[in-house]
Amino acid sequence: MSLPIIALTMGDPAGVGPELVLRALADPIERECCHLAVFGERDVLQRCAEHTGLPAPKMKRIPANDLRRDDLTAEAATLVEVPGLAGAEFEPARVAAACGQASYNYIQAAIDAALGQHVDAVTTAPINKQALSLAGIDYPGHTEMFAERAATANRWCMMQASNEITCSFVTTHVGYAEVPALLTIQRVLDTIELTHSALQQMRGTRQHLVVCGLNPHAGEHGLFGNREEETVIVPAIERAREQGISIEGPLPPDAAFLPWKRRETGAYVCMYHDQGHIPVKALAFDDAVNTTLGLDIVRTSVDHGTAFDIAWTGAARSKSLFAALRLACTLSHPPAV
Amino acid sequence: MSLPIIALTMGDPAGVGPELVLRALADPIERECCHLAVFGERDVLQRCAEHTGLPAPKMKRIPANDLRRDDLTAEAATLVEVPGLAGAEFEPARVAAACGQASYNYIQAAIDAALGQHVDAVTTAPINKQALSLAGIDYPGHTEMFAERAATANRWCMMQASNEITCSFVTTHVGYAEVPALLTIQRVLDTIELTHSALQQMRGTRQHLVVCGLNPHAGEHGLFGNREEETVIVPAIERAREQGISIEGPLPPDAAFLPWKRRETGAYVCMYHDQGHIPVKALAFDDAVNTTLGLDIVRTSVDHGTAFDIAWTGAARSKSLFAALRLACTLSHPPAV
Repeated sequence: MSLPIIALTMGDPAGVGPELVLRALADPIERECCHLAVFGERDVLQRCAEHTGLPAPKMKRIPANDLRRDDLTAEAATLVEVPGLAGAEFEPARVAAACGQASYNYIQAAIDAALGQHVDAVTTAPINKQALSLAGIDYPGHTEMFAERAATANRWCMMQASNEITCSFVTTHVGYAEVPALLTIQRVLDTIELTHSALQQMRGTRQHLVVCGLNPHAGEHGLFGNREEETVIVPAIERAREQGISIEGPLPPDAAFLPWKRRETGAYVCMYHDQGHIPVKALAFDDAVNTTLGLDIVRTSVDHGTAFDIAWTGAARSKSLFAALRLACTLSHPPAV
Repeated sequence: MSLPIIALTMGDPAGVGPELVLRALADPIERECCHLAVFGERDVLQRCAEHTGLPAPKMKRIPANDLRRDDLTAEAATLVEVPGLAGAEFEPARVAAACGQASYNYIQAAIDAALGQHVDAVTTAPINKQALSLAGIDYPGHTEMFAERAATANRWCMMQASNEITCSFVTTHVGYAEVPALLTIQRVLDTIELTHSALQQMRGTRQHLVVCGLNPHAGEHGLFGNREEETVIVPAIERAREQGISIEGPLPPDAAFLPWKRRETGAYVCMYHDQGHIPVKALAFDDAVNTTLGLDIVRTSVDHGTAFDIAWTGAARSKSLFAALRLACTLSHPPAV
């Protein structure tokens, strides 16, 4: 069986991304599930290697504008060279427009490669929103960049996956107050369906889903809130159940994450960002993977930021990155269900 | 030093409350910090003992309407008899108006005793909101009943305390959508001050507070939300800092609960119910204690419900109750700071 080709973007040059790439290159065992194609720049990796004492990368180099799938299936990793910094100076651990622009270019080149089917999936190292913004590029995160170019069916959602706890999200990067108006039966149902389908690919077996309520105590029969549970969430759950999906809810959000409940739950469908991000970070801070479901391409990501406080010091932990690469492999070549 | 007298209400007769009371009575070591005065009914406890096989209680009985502090300082526990069920029939593990009314009566008698300084604190066993509602008594929970009678300064808040994680709440039993309008600088500051002061009593040392943002990523400099962080939360934090309180925030709510962050945080000030209840239940489901800060009387509670699925079966776990009794003792007789 041929291995999937995974594009790994280098992330913001000034963040922990380059170090994570070096760690991935130095550990072929951890990435034996795939052919690795790093989308970034040699100079940055070289400089980061000198800075951190990690081995300098020796890779075949291919320009991003002349990419063919066959060039990426060698046993060793390949560097797909993207004009990013274009010679601009930058300081490690400093927010800079040039770094924001470069990180954006790596991502766009990787999306091009995935849409052109030169790679089977994209795994992303962290970017810095402030740096992007300085470069005049305004996105709340990777998810929205990928959705813009690869969500042709216009139904997609974010998922955070780990062995301990997995959550997907009906809404994500919006203000607290905007959430209730964004909840529709269709949107909740889309998230349920995408989650159900991804879980089957990820784990190869039928999994049980738990849907969280929006209000404290899931509204407690209309005592709190505007009956969002009854009018939006319950109908979506009923439709999902008609499709044969094993599902329950809406559960009181705090009771949903009790330890015994977690053990029987394949994934949680959460109504808003922090409803799921709080327990995921509290319980699986180190090995959660972020993935975007419903795109035309497979995309996974580390579940942390650029970590400027430790960037370029050699202290970055690669657990989340390796988990992200493994999930990209699984979603590219799913086991038979 | 004389021990504090703690009123322990029996909770809903059909729930796990009576069994928890029997377990407290059977384990004098766990309650050696206090004189225990059970507010409830002998018949219920007797019947629950027969049902569960726990030892039948042998206690001095005093009618609630003839209570004097001196009667409650005997070494053995006392039963303060409250007309609750008044002979009404009830079935274990069944919601009933009579049980709702009875549980309400126990609480009111305990509040009377605390306001009359016959007891030093009240610890409550769980009540059932549906049963209360059937009896025509509408409160979201204990907290609001106590606040109505004992929050003379009109500044109070809920706290969930445990060794692993402690959270206090600016808003609690309100719908998701109502939260933003309820957040004011004064209310956030009140919650910070009450939390700071309670923590000093509880732990005897100066503790560090973390305040959570409202929006994902704490708004990320206005990218998400309506700048609730900048306009409400930051000014409250600044005023608290001027008072010498060790405090930081508003932190991105998911990052706030990372394991390393929890270790250096005495308590979290949370903007809404599930922001704190989710991590508390996920991390400390078994030993969290609920307490109401800012009242004229000390009040603690188990951090779980009536658990009708296991009520009267002998399977109730008393860890949270004993933790609640110990916290009531600590808050009644605080160590010197």
